[in-house]
Amino acid sequence: MPTPVEFADSHRSRFESELSDWLCIPSISTLPEHRPDLRRAAHWLAEYLRSMDLPTVEIIETVGQPLIYAEWLGAPGRPTLLGYGHYDVQPVDPIELWTSPPFQPAARGGRLFARGAADDKGQILTLIAAVRAYLQTTDKLPINVKLLIEGEEESGGAGIAAYVREHADRLRADACLVLDSGMFAPGIPAITLGLRGIVGGEIEVSGAARDLHSGTYGGVAPNPFQALAEIITGLKDKQGRVLVPGFYDRVVAPPAEEKAEWARLPFDEAAFLRDEVGSPALIGEPGYTALERMWARPTLEVHGMPGGFTGAGSKTVIPARASAKISMRLVADQRPAEIIDAFVAHVEAIAPKSVRAQVAHGGGGAPPVVISPKAPAITAAKRALSEAFGREAVFIRMGGSVPIVSEFAGRLGLPVVVTGWSLPDANAHSPNESLDLEHFHKGILAVMRFFEQLGSAAGATR
Amino acid sequence: MPTPVEFADSHRSRFESELSDWLCIPSISTLPEHRPDLRRAAHWLAEYLRSMDLPTVEIIETVGQPLIYAEWLGAPGRPTLLGYGHYDVQPVDPIELWTSPPFQPAARGGRLFARGAADDKGQILTLIAAVRAYLQTTDKLPINVKLLIEGEEESGGAGIAAYVREHADRLRADACLVLDSGMFAPGIPAITLGLRGIVGGEIEVSGAARDLHSGTYGGVAPNPFQALAEIITGLKDKQGRVLVPGFYDRVVAPPAEEKAEWARLPFDEAAFLRDEVGSPALIGEPGYTALERMWARPTLEVHGMPGGFTGAGSKTVIPARASAKISMRLVADQRPAEIIDAFVAHVEAIAPKSVRAQVAHGGGGAPPVVISPKAPAITAAKRALSEAFGREAVFIRMGGSVPIVSEFAGRLGLPVVVTGWSLPDANAHSPNESLDLEHFHKGILAVMRFFEQLGSAAGATR
Repeated sequence: MPTPVEFADSHRSRFESELSDWLCIPSISTLPEHRPDLRRAAHWLAEYLRSMDLPTVEIIETVGQPLIYAEWLGAPGRPTLLGYGHYDVQPVDPIELWTSPPFQPAARGGRLFARGAADDKGQILTLIAAVRAYLQTTDKLPINVKLLIEGEEESGGAGIAAYVREHADRLRADACLVLDSGMFAPGIPAITLGLRGIVGGEIEVSGAARDLHSGTYGGVAPNPFQALAEIITGLKDKQGRVLVPGFYDRVVAPPAEEKAEWARLPFDEAAFLRDEVGSPALIGEPGYTALERMWARPTLEVHGMPGGFTGAGSKTVIPARASAKISMRLVADQRPAEIIDAFVAHVEAIAPKSVRAQVAHGGGGAPPVVISPKAPAITAAKRALSEAFGREAVFIRMGGSVPIVSEFAGRLGLPVVVTGWSLPDANAHSPNESLDLEHFHKGILAVMRFFEQLGSAAGATR
Repeated sequence: MPTPVEFADSHRSRFESELSDWLCIPSISTLPEHRPDLRRAAHWLAEYLRSMDLPTVEIIETVGQPLIYAEWLGAPGRPTLLGYGHYDVQPVDPIELWTSPPFQPAARGGRLFARGAADDKGQILTLIAAVRAYLQTTDKLPINVKLLIEGEEESGGAGIAAYVREHADRLRADACLVLDSGMFAPGIPAITLGLRGIVGGEIEVSGAARDLHSGTYGGVAPNPFQALAEIITGLKDKQGRVLVPGFYDRVVAPPAEEKAEWARLPFDEAAFLRDEVGSPALIGEPGYTALERMWARPTLEVHGMPGGFTGAGSKTVIPARASAKISMRLVADQRPAEIIDAFVAHVEAIAPKSVRAQVAHGGGGAPPVVISPKAPAITAAKRALSEAFGREAVFIRMGGSVPIVSEFAGRLGLPVVVTGWSLPDANAHSPNESLDLEHFHKGILAVMRFFEQLGSAAGATR
């Protein structure tokens, strides 16, 4: 009988093939027409977990997409790890920029290209593969494991948030593993100690009662796009500083030692600009490094401006309505509810009086999270990642948001290990998303070592 | 045998029915997929003219949509009128706001609702119906008539512009009748003495090399929408004044007597705001009345801002590219080529350096036109309209652009009578376009009286 590690090594192509099967399902949670695909992706996962002879595998209906819950609690006295990931994916537009179709996984240059390869199917599957490697070789795990995998991470996560609030007892654990972050660079594993929060909405501006001919009415009728341009320039200045009153009041600077570690990271701003961003220049608030602006400063972005005429050719219309889809990334200790209220009040205050402006938003959002590096689970994870990748793992933060992390850290009071194998150029939310397959396999080994570390650390301390 | 007027009166429902047939053809010239419909609309018109036994009816191929040319020159010694209109129509979006389908003409409350009812099929058909009324009753017209009807008025008019330049001899006439303007108000016929010009383009902004995750890159990557908002607020200030250097240099104020006539027009700004525009307030440059801002001041409008994510739900993307479709309305003596050059230079000067900004435009555009009220054709038209509608016709201007008018006035040197039966609330470029059917029939009579006026005035002076 092979060891769990030998099993994982010898089943590399099988795990890749299974990942590819899952990636074929276009489980885009923000687009209502993909609802059946979300269910297919959830059922695929439940079947996969059942094939591992886990004693409990449940498909849990929620107000939104189904949750998958599974557990193996055969190591009494050992710690329990709650593992989290998501099976939903981002939309794929602009579709024409994909080299291969987003839901036909294709391996090129050591990477697997598909929507969801990095975010998050290819990451959560390393946790599941690690569990399989143990169960199929030794019939047991070094620790107890609970898995909670959702289908709405990209669309608000209302279902899992409610479930965590209502089932805190069932989810009781000693630590949490959230596989939805990434590596700092190729070969450099990382643990994410901070995540930005998010809150957003759509600024809806209406001017005339109907679309108007810009010849007939140009000069007297308010133009919602002109009003939106004035509002947007009143939300963020040319330096990138958000102008919403009170926006920065609760912002806490990161500890000096954390900033010092960031300064030592192999980060080449010129290469980052050239290879990752590709714009003529970076933007942002003066007085902060690029990493600080991405990890420890809040921001405000416009994602799209629906309305008017956007087809080929021209139509000289003054549209009756236009809007701007906006979100704000938050850092500790900003509070989403306070920020959206201040945002709404500011939009109403600065909107031109010739139009009606309102902000449509669902409230909600996600608070920012900061995790202490001193928790034993973080120490265990750092050692496991360093060993599996043969390179000291680094502590970073993440500019993105994983709303459920604040539930795990705040509501369940768990030390949360946020990590993953996605690379900075994985294109998680853009065309040609990919996962490095070598990192995928090292990720499986890292999770297995983390199980061992957690089990033996517990033995030593209990 | 009935008189021409009796014929027109007794054939009201027939003319309405023929107009409806033509309106069923979705001849949208700005959308390439409607190219076959343009040809159908052109052929429908040619067949209709042939059924009137006009000696010459031609379908003329151009670089764009076909032109229709017809003539009746059986009144030697009498003046020749060149009549103009267009068979193409505007797009119909937002389609969901139409009460009845745009290409299924429906009569409600004395109006005929359909895209193109007012702009311009329902107007040009009054000229053709007037010709039919004479030819079918008396076999002759009081004057010579040439008809030139195009299919790209809404999309640049390249075909007719080239034709007019190359066939000035064939189009020689004593006056021109352009049925593409409208009435001042219900029951008040009007002759348009000025039209604004137009020139436009699309400001294309690119930031990052690909769409980026706003969590990961928010705070460092330039956002093209933010850049466009900054550019747009740098193009026009909150007072509505265009900020492009030199923009107003050639602007000529209208003559005092014209402004005095405008001040006497029954224009109720509060009712106009409430019933026609419907926004909380009007906008525009201080120091000018609403009519002056629409008729005698240039403006700049944003028509749409393609890019990013505009679907339902949310996608937290910093788009790689976004753009703004813009046009400027010009007044005498602004020159389109000078204005677009100044616009491009200004956009390049004010665009943030973190993005690339360029203006895509086809040059072209249309110069503004001002027509003297003293021309005999204008006098004849004013008398004809006043008699047909039983109300003194007024001299107005028009905020919109009919590019070919400047060709007729400038290149052919013709006195141009710009008029029509469209009402201010005809929704020419928005959902639920309509034509008042009573005005449609009075319009036929007005054209017939204009023929008589022109014929007898010529007789008197020759």
